Amino acid sequence: MKNVAILGSTGTIGLNTLDIVRRNPRRFRISALAAGFNLKLLADQIREFRPGLVSVAKKEDADALARLAGRTRSLVTFGVEGAEDVAAYDRNDVVVSAITGTNGLRPTLAAVRAGKAVALANKESMVVAGPLLRREARRYGAAIIPVDSEHSGIFQCLAGQDRKAVAAVTLTASGGPFLRTPLREMARKTVDEALAHPRWKMGKKVTVDSATLMNKGLELIEAHHLFDLPPEKLRVLVHPQSIVHALVALRDGSVLAQLSPTDMRLPIQYALTYPERGESPLPPLDLAAVERLEFYPVDERRYPLMKTARRALEEGGSLPVALNAANEVAVEAFLAGRVGFPGIYGTISAVLDNYRPRPLGGLDDILAEDSLVRERARRIIKKRN
Amino acid sequence: MKNVAILGSTGTIGLNTLDIVRRNPRRFRISALAAGFNLKLLADQIREFRPGLVSVAKKEDADALARLAGRTRSLVTFGVEGAEDVAAYDRNDVVVSAITGTNGLRPTLAAVRAGKAVALANKESMVVAGPLLRREARRYGAAIIPVDSEHSGIFQCLAGQDRKAVAAVTLTASGGPFLRTPLREMARKTVDEALAHPRWKMGKKVTVDSATLMNKGLELIEAHHLFDLPPEKLRVLVHPQSIVHALVALRDGSVLAQLSPTDMRLPIQYALTYPERGESPLPPLDLAAVERLEFYPVDERRYPLMKTARRALEEGGSLPVALNAANEVAVEAFLAGRVGFPGIYGTISAVLDNYRPRPLGGLDDILAEDSLVRERARRIIKKRN
Repeated sequence: MKNVAILGSTGTIGLNTLDIVRRNPRRFRISALAAGFNLKLLADQIREFRPGLVSVAKKEDADALARLAGRTRSLVTFGVEGAEDVAAYDRNDVVVSAITGTNGLRPTLAAVRAGKAVALANKESMVVAGPLLRREARRYGAAIIPVDSEHSGIFQCLAGQDRKAVAAVTLTASGGPFLRTPLREMARKTVDEALAHPRWKMGKKVTVDSATLMNKGLELIEAHHLFDLPPEKLRVLVHPQSIVHALVALRDGSVLAQLSPTDMRLPIQYALTYPERGESPLPPLDLAAVERLEFYPVDERRYPLMKTARRALEEGGSLPVALNAANEVAVEAFLAGRVGFPGIYGTISAVLDNYRPRPLGGLDDILAEDSLVRERARRIIKKRN
Repeated sequence: MKNVAILGSTGTIGLNTLDIVRRNPRRFRISALAAGFNLKLLADQIREFRPGLVSVAKKEDADALARLAGRTRSLVTFGVEGAEDVAAYDRNDVVVSAITGTNGLRPTLAAVRAGKAVALANKESMVVAGPLLRREARRYGAAIIPVDSEHSGIFQCLAGQDRKAVAAVTLTASGGPFLRTPLREMARKTVDEALAHPRWKMGKKVTVDSATLMNKGLELIEAHHLFDLPPEKLRVLVHPQSIVHALVALRDGSVLAQLSPTDMRLPIQYALTYPERGESPLPPLDLAAVERLEFYPVDERRYPLMKTARRALEEGGSLPVALNAANEVAVEAFLAGRVGFPGIYGTISAVLDNYRPRPLGGLDDILAEDSLVRERARRIIKKRN
């Protein structure tokens, strides 16, 4: 029996994780849950899973939950410290890190420092603080198991392979909803159109990242840190079917690939059961029914952020932090209707064009840089409006 | 430095193996070669690679080679015993078993009993004597590493995976030259048309087997023995591009696949370097250039031998021996113009329809059954003409 904590239990990854736990009552139990503002859903989760510890964003919400939590004997806490408490809770065996954006970093780090197995869905943590997370994971004996389908695929392909024989690693990108949109129409794309992802059901932020392909840029940086792969060995291919998630090319010409139906529950379950494998909640992949798998190079006119992200991957230092912060602010502004779709790229460019990357220190330094760039991005958006 | 012996050095697999050895002079040396009747080519190979021991089919040919071999200080031997000497030669580290058909069985067994690593290209050995070869490999500590691209793919996908988690294994089939031939035209297909394989350059026998899909039937039985997989977990998919060679489905819904350019040197080299990986002799696989990978179920009207082979896989005993013997005789007759393309299936059906499978004993029992069925197949072909 594994005790599972979820950071971000009311989000898409959180709900999928709870579905896996619900289907495997003999394998998993929920030890702790951290959510943000969705009090009603969290209350349902407390009633169903009876976690020992829960956390919400605001103190008032924590107080409101207290009576319910009294009946289920759950402790209630709040704020970033609350999420850190949930992450480091002593009953946890594995912590699913699924708070979106840089907000996920501190709780993720708390889980790592508590020596927990971390099922990492929060790619931004690894992007902004990869070296720190890896160092701390080594120090505290914490395993980091990727939940992103592409990284889960790489992780599975690398098992049993000599790392020195790895020639290249390719992440696939669906291409998002605008893969075949004429370029001149991209400027008019609305929030609803950007959120209509053809393959994956995901949260809003990551769905927009998928439309700009920033998602893949962040994933390249994540893969770089997670698997200790140099930038020049990392590739992206557009693969509209989203069946092949990753390809690992070995120096002798052989390529190993990981495929699965497009459902986040599969990589989540693998991260929870690792190193074992549970039963799939889905019918097996039927390639004859899919019929064809297509692969295309990335068109950088359509996805200019790929180039920006690759620069951050190659230069490192504080540049990935700046890239991620500018992107989070730009996507937020797009979702709020304050910039158009091309404004996402425009904002990020405006921030990064005059940006001087510098070496980064510890967590405080990372978070300070993150705040600074966010402020700059917000000013740029205001000026433009 | 590994010492490599080749059983079948003048065939397609033999020549590809020599190309790998030639390209990697610091990694490999040829210790011994066994060939059949192609004296001129074998003489060139002796001059170039200076093996310690060589063998040919006939005593007269051995005598004719003696003078040349004297200059290179190679010992010369002949016949089946000669091939067995080459297989068990004490300098060998790895033996490439690439004599086509049941003829390959005795030398393969000799290599296994000498405790050599066996790079197995001769699938018929495993089909007719799988349990015997596996038993002897365990007893003498011989590793058997598959050379068939599909089995090499399975072998690579299974590395590092929990065998209990394997739900299904799929071998791909190109479909051969008649994948899209209208069914009513199949009866008129000539030897030249059957030998015009769209993807692989191989020997004649295996190319015809590829047109009938008997190749895939034999490979299913080979996979069953090599990887100890029950028949119900073994699948075939038609995949005209021949880029994906095998797929291993795990019970949690994840599928691992092995891909590579269509060139036999890649799986041969892997079998030679295993557990390491050498440098590829080819440019890396470029999926964006391939653009699409297609997968179809097997059409049993087009490939009726698939059903016959599956029956042999499921019933076992002497049935795979009979299937293989009838097929070898039928393909020989087709290549000699004595039966038409549908006559291959017709002959095999006629042999197997009245065949009573029985449990098999050791090598002599297998070879006796093989002879008996061959005689029967020859009589049937004679009667039909």
